Amino acid sequence: MTDCVFCDIVSGTSPARIVYSDDHVVGFLDIRPIVRGHTLIVPRRHSAGLADLDPDAGARVLWAGQKVAAAMRSSELSADGINLAINDGRAAFQTVFHTHLHVVPRTDGDRVRFVRGLVVRRDPDPDTTARILRDALTAEDHS
Amino acid sequence: MTDCVFCDIVSGTSPARIVYSDDHVVGFLDIRPIVRGHTLIVPRRHSAGLADLDPDAGARVLWAGQKVAAAMRSSELSADGINLAINDGRAAFQTVFHTHLHVVPRTDGDRVRFVRGLVVRRDPDPDTTARILRDALTAEDHS
Repeated sequence: MTDCVFCDIVSGTSPARIVYSDDHVVGFLDIRPIVRGHTLIVPRRHSAGLADLDPDAGARVLWAGQKVAAAMRSSELSADGINLAINDGRAAFQTVFHTHLHVVPRTDGDRVRFVRGLVVRRDPDPDTTARILRDALTAEDHS
Repeated sequence: MTDCVFCDIVSGTSPARIVYSDDHVVGFLDIRPIVRGHTLIVPRRHSAGLADLDPDAGARVLWAGQKVAAAMRSSELSADGINLAINDGRAAFQTVFHTHLHVVPRTDGDRVRFVRGLVVRRDPDPDTTARILRDALTAEDHS
């Protein structure tokens, strides 16, 4: 265990519902999702924020975000849109100080649920959600 | 003029308060800022959204976002935090269909102003705001 919960997820020391993994980044479900499927992409190498994020690592994070976004659209999550966001600093709502990209699936007309989700943040069946995204990402790799 | 307002800004056909420019991307003030300094970074080559955004272009956009974020912190805008966001699709609040990264400076305790800004979106002196960011970016290049 380190003092960084995301480093512990990257190393496998802490559990997480992993949906994407490669040599540079790991993607897993946010434990407090704004909406179902809300995923975080983190670089394997620790950086606290934008100032110390290696540009190559940033590129890998964004590219993984594009792939996860595609999976959210193609899978039964049936996303109509995607919000990608990096919050840098407490003033910008960053709570875990290991740089992470939020990938948030949106559906037409979900605005009320989305706003409520900023407060409530729960998914009744996250294991199924993770499986759906993994399956869609695997299907894309083979297409 | 094309049918894409951001392509017209990139080509110089439409005016904008440019704060950053390189061979791959252009950054300019959002004409309807959530808060003062709210900047958009766009790839020079048109893409509508995440699905057709070239990963190399995405990397350049994010890297420019990191530089503009640093300028927001170092300049008299005195940002304490930064939100980076890409909205993909109408369901995710995308309104201009040329991929763009929002770079939004945040200050401690601005939550009410930030939320109100989602509706109001105005800066009484955008020319000064643009100059501040350009100067800070130039200063970073020379440091």
